[in-house]
Amino acid sequence: MRDVFIVGVGMTEFGELWEKALRELITEAGLEAVQDAGVRGPDIDAMYVASASAGRLLGQQQLGVLALDEAGLAGHHVPATRIEAGDASGAAALRSAALAVASGAHDVVVAGGVEKMTDVLEDDATRALASSADMEWEGFFGATLPALYAMMARSHAAEHGTTRDQLAHVAVKNHEHGADNPDAAFPFTTSLESVKGSPPVSDPIRMFDCASPVDGAAALVLADRDTAEQLGGPRVQITATAQASDALALHRRDAITELASSQAAAEEAFAETDHGPEDVDLAELHDVYTIAELISLESLGFYEPGMAATATVKGRTTHGGDLVVNPSGGLKARGHALGATGLAQAAEVAAQIRRDAGERQVEDAQVGLTQAVAGTGGTSIVHVLEGGGEL
Amino acid sequence: MRDVFIVGVGMTEFGELWEKALRELITEAGLEAVQDAGVRGPDIDAMYVASASAGRLLGQQQLGVLALDEAGLAGHHVPATRIEAGDASGAAALRSAALAVASGAHDVVVAGGVEKMTDVLEDDATRALASSADMEWEGFFGATLPALYAMMARSHAAEHGTTRDQLAHVAVKNHEHGADNPDAAFPFTTSLESVKGSPPVSDPIRMFDCASPVDGAAALVLADRDTAEQLGGPRVQITATAQASDALALHRRDAITELASSQAAAEEAFAETDHGPEDVDLAELHDVYTIAELISLESLGFYEPGMAATATVKGRTTHGGDLVVNPSGGLKARGHALGATGLAQAAEVAAQIRRDAGERQVEDAQVGLTQAVAGTGGTSIVHVLEGGGEL
Repeated sequence: MRDVFIVGVGMTEFGELWEKALRELITEAGLEAVQDAGVRGPDIDAMYVASASAGRLLGQQQLGVLALDEAGLAGHHVPATRIEAGDASGAAALRSAALAVASGAHDVVVAGGVEKMTDVLEDDATRALASSADMEWEGFFGATLPALYAMMARSHAAEHGTTRDQLAHVAVKNHEHGADNPDAAFPFTTSLESVKGSPPVSDPIRMFDCASPVDGAAALVLADRDTAEQLGGPRVQITATAQASDALALHRRDAITELASSQAAAEEAFAETDHGPEDVDLAELHDVYTIAELISLESLGFYEPGMAATATVKGRTTHGGDLVVNPSGGLKARGHALGATGLAQAAEVAAQIRRDAGERQVEDAQVGLTQAVAGTGGTSIVHVLEGGGEL
Repeated sequence: MRDVFIVGVGMTEFGELWEKALRELITEAGLEAVQDAGVRGPDIDAMYVASASAGRLLGQQQLGVLALDEAGLAGHHVPATRIEAGDASGAAALRSAALAVASGAHDVVVAGGVEKMTDVLEDDATRALASSADMEWEGFFGATLPALYAMMARSHAAEHGTTRDQLAHVAVKNHEHGADNPDAAFPFTTSLESVKGSPPVSDPIRMFDCASPVDGAAALVLADRDTAEQLGGPRVQITATAQASDALALHRRDAITELASSQAAAEEAFAETDHGPEDVDLAELHDVYTIAELISLESLGFYEPGMAATATVKGRTTHGGDLVVNPSGGLKARGHALGATGLAQAAEVAAQIRRDAGERQVEDAQVGLTQAVAGTGGTSIVHVLEGGGEL
């Protein structure tokens, strides 16, 4: 398997982008990535495009071809495939693209992701999110994602004594990070009181514990080593890509206070590199709810079970701590544009490693990790990114 | 890249399967394929699962994980990914699985596909099918797939003199084949008069020119050469896998009397093997409408433009002719279970090469080709299958 490099990064702002169509968003991110890489359209050998809900909400399938077509590249007839893995769709597209380069099948591959979630009926968006859970065992009975995560939070609290205050600290920390991110949908700070006083959604989860679905797109250009060296720009190496599954429905799992799929993916990813969790300088994690960041930190091996909350409160997961978790603001402050999220995570880590992160730059960022989760953990995808020369 | 073999094949019947849930269908096909291969569940390294419309029609995403979970394999945490490429989703899953084995990433991979299309509102199914076209340029204005294919048929008639009678011959031939297929949804013969007298859908396309959306699932187990040799059973080699794209909307293409994506995919596929179209003994093609089979035969290089209709009428595309086209009955008689179709095509070719096709066995079947098309040709995927020893 060949080495794989991120040679170009592109992102739209995240937010309520009513004036931009799905195809405009993916094209904007894709063109930015292609320009950043210094490649031309005809250099692209294949595209993988992620979207979780476009088929359902917009009636549009074949998103890969749509993106290729909109970029004016349909005449090149290169393969363009849509990848879907619920909330983890963007990371799944990145992984497919990375494997396509690693295998030698293609030299230059674009991984893109896009979602339009705001200009649909609220109930439709909620159901689209819930479709990443088990529809027959959970969704049919009215369980939405916050309800399922609330059960995880209560179980975590019963086992480890996790408090309402500790959950709020995650949101406050991620908004502090996101306030410095010009692409973030919610670039402002908040307070413990504000989070704890926000309207209840599904006890103990309150509105400001939740990441909000937004519109947005992100794209990365990947290339093999020879091509990356020819391009000569800054590059970031993908040193591990790992994906793991678990039962879709919570009741079919051994435990709901951990994410077994994230644990399995992280173990595989670290085995692929010569690093352990202690070597990671920054991580973009799936903080779709505040409890999710704590469980993720524990499942990925950064903290022992039950220790992530204290670490968060003590400031160990922000600048100057053990590692910076969600320097972009995470799903919470950047916003969660499902198909784009996994790629936005990788774009943030790449920017950090390239020292392009401006106000939110993580000091001495060498090794970064991304973790995407679909639904309540049916799928987890972990990537490890590192400097690959010319930085 | 390593050689890839189909070591196991499984299929449900196709049809109106109201009594079976999506998860039951995919499990039935998957278990049959796994038993046929002689592998055990824990031997499976990864799964790729195709479904075009489950997210839209059933509110269920993460189909890959659902299939893994339902098979009792969630505890193994192997990656399971859903692939979507409209009507070509099954072929896209097969291609992803084949590349995963070829790359060395995995040794044993299951490619599965499933669709439930009959127990939803008819209008929902029509819209789900149309979502493979360009929603903003075509679907929004009311264009459905038969309407778009009708334009292709009229253009083909204007250019090549294709007649109403010739179109009907495609349906009659495929029903003759399908009558011998126990898994077919419509296993009966029909007549030119019956096809030509069926209710108009979108002139010149009539009801019996159309493939009907049905329920069904299909699965294949793929393996590398070492594993295939250890298993020791009959095996079929995938000697080429090629995917190509074209503009989604008809008006953005150079011509609508051909499928440029199929042409590009076939050229690439034949270049990967040492075969040309003349070496192909049987082909499972995307006869979603009768005109589609004719255009496909020409675009794939089996006949010169405008010559496929005469060849069909003369019996050159059935047993004893140049090649047997859609020996299974094709989408027309077997039925079109979108996510399953591309895999059912490969299952049919594998069965033919293994001499397992019973009444519909193609004499001396050595080289087979499958072609899947999404929508009106935004995506085409071509596979070439050949005997791989132990037959």
